[in-house]
Amino acid sequence: MELEVDSGKLAKALSIVSRVAASSKATLPILNNVLIRVDEGKVSLTTTNLDMAVVDFIPVSESKDGVITVPARLLAEFAANLPKKNVVKITTEGTKVNVESKGYKSTLNGAVADDFPELPGIEESAAVKFKMGVDEFKVGINQVIVASSNDMTRPALTGVYFNTADGVLYVAATDGYRLAERELIRKVESEIKAIVPTNSLSEVLRTLSDDVEEIEILFDETQVRFRIGEIEITSKLIDGSFPDYRQLIPKESEAEVLLNKAELVRVTKLAALFAREVGGSIVLEAKTSTGTFAVGSVANEYGENTSEIETEIVKDERITLNSRFLIDALNALDEEKVRLGFTGKVSPIIVKNEKSQRYTHIIMPLKS
Amino acid sequence: MELEVDSGKLAKALSIVSRVAASSKATLPILNNVLIRVDEGKVSLTTTNLDMAVVDFIPVSESKDGVITVPARLLAEFAANLPKKNVVKITTEGTKVNVESKGYKSTLNGAVADDFPELPGIEESAAVKFKMGVDEFKVGINQVIVASSNDMTRPALTGVYFNTADGVLYVAATDGYRLAERELIRKVESEIKAIVPTNSLSEVLRTLSDDVEEIEILFDETQVRFRIGEIEITSKLIDGSFPDYRQLIPKESEAEVLLNKAELVRVTKLAALFAREVGGSIVLEAKTSTGTFAVGSVANEYGENTSEIETEIVKDERITLNSRFLIDALNALDEEKVRLGFTGKVSPIIVKNEKSQRYTHIIMPLKS
Repeated sequence: MELEVDSGKLAKALSIVSRVAASSKATLPILNNVLIRVDEGKVSLTTTNLDMAVVDFIPVSESKDGVITVPARLLAEFAANLPKKNVVKITTEGTKVNVESKGYKSTLNGAVADDFPELPGIEESAAVKFKMGVDEFKVGINQVIVASSNDMTRPALTGVYFNTADGVLYVAATDGYRLAERELIRKVESEIKAIVPTNSLSEVLRTLSDDVEEIEILFDETQVRFRIGEIEITSKLIDGSFPDYRQLIPKESEAEVLLNKAELVRVTKLAALFAREVGGSIVLEAKTSTGTFAVGSVANEYGENTSEIETEIVKDERITLNSRFLIDALNALDEEKVRLGFTGKVSPIIVKNEKSQRYTHIIMPLKS
Repeated sequence: MELEVDSGKLAKALSIVSRVAASSKATLPILNNVLIRVDEGKVSLTTTNLDMAVVDFIPVSESKDGVITVPARLLAEFAANLPKKNVVKITTEGTKVNVESKGYKSTLNGAVADDFPELPGIEESAAVKFKMGVDEFKVGINQVIVASSNDMTRPALTGVYFNTADGVLYVAATDGYRLAERELIRKVESEIKAIVPTNSLSEVLRTLSDDVEEIEILFDETQVRFRIGEIEITSKLIDGSFPDYRQLIPKESEAEVLLNKAELVRVTKLAALFAREVGGSIVLEAKTSTGTFAVGSVANEYGENTSEIETEIVKDERITLNSRFLIDALNALDEEKVRLGFTGKVSPIIVKNEKSQRYTHIIMPLKS
């Protein structure tokens, strides 16, 4: 195998694919390696952690066919430390991989590619396909991913649920205590119901760069592939059934309060400081008597705290909830003002943008 | 006790003093607290971890004398989350501390000040004093602190040695494997020999800000005080004797090699990547035959690496050393070119700036 590549391009590709290799536990040592494949002038770098795989195709000036694996992180750090815009020549002698650039010479101990566990491909013609802008994808996924669970005993909740309804593609996530739903694409013709692991989506988000405008999403029965320019991330889907979440979202609120988001974040953080010993439990209170919305903590070992924001209040409401969940929800919104919807102290609170209806976040109350 | 203060000024002072409180282990809970003292209109915030104390004097608009302690980090985070340029009013009722600002109200559970362990003062008239520019102090201390030890079984090496010789104030530090010395002030009249804990100096460095130009250093027999504007950091000195380090620095090198620093850092990092399993051990080699300076790793499980830099070589030299120590030394230098001095493979290597003679860093070789 032989190839010549620009040092900067090699470094960039390796920095992306080596993240997946590095995340693999050392149970199968070859998972620490990157597979370098040269096939008729097309060069690809592949890593996998068995749940997902990432492939980056890189442009090369010279090449001879062949395939080898080498420690991904070592090669990535080596490439990152080379001067930019130098030509790097990679050649193999058995499992020894020589990497040379003007003045720099390394030999890495590689391993044959036979044992490298490649994920099965996705049959493009049979797959369900979606295309969308990278920016919109990034916003939408970030808005729901925050509500997903990392409790591995409930696998269906450790992913984001891609589902179509009435020609709209939605994404949703819940950890059982809060739930977020976002319209991702307004008019779609295909149908899908699939749970994509949060870990894989996080990797996709990290990989998105400013120089790519569109992302392509392909589903088959068991896998999903995200194509971002020259990079393909393939992930297994989560085999499980996502809760029928739409029935959990209150159709309408008893009363709504409109607040400045930054101010609500500030007072929630202040209350949260005093709520650490009580699991982050804080109290929100809408008071018609004073025309104020109060956020406070319950008195405890450290002391207590209350902040009041003047705003229009149509009905007295009082609810106890986890401050961290409220801060997460507020940070996920993208308008200056936030609309909180209340339906009594045992129903979930609805957190929405003032204007846009595309995103809904609900938080279950705590017992008070 | 009562005081009124600007929210931004309170937040800034608390962010500085709370670091020391936060670093204290909870063996003595009151060490988590900040002491607030109002004495004839002068308001001070004090924290201590028993080894060092920091006091910040803050300007207040209104005040009534008194003294109390409250959890430092809680108050610091509370103040940091208030809007800037608001007036904050702090009042006490017994050990309850009320903190109020427009719309925000908190009560913190404090503790009486009687149990707060204040460090003894320094008698100014009897102290040895130095004054210097903050920028020069920062550069000088950072250049030596990197060579200090964190091995608590050799306490004298866990500090920086302030010592005068021939009217010059030097600072020096060593961990037994490397040693750094820096001229700190050229012409001084007082004499001093004192070891200041590295931890205390790190805190002083963190506290330095752009709005203060001068730092004052006062030593008595057992303590040192750094005064930076309105902030005073007092630290115990380390009770021990610092090695007679000057005899360890070779008077002259057999041969010198002049190199571009950035390039030497780069090739050292490349070699270090391959040297992880061998304790970071790398080989430097000056070769008259090729007129190159080579930095390489020894072949091991991962592979091997050599980089060559063309430069003037007057004598063949070869030395094995710890790559991390070389990178630390190079990062401490402040000129574009570095001068490496060799005296055979068992003598320490000298790392210096090309021109300035104020800083010397030596690294002991490893057995090869």
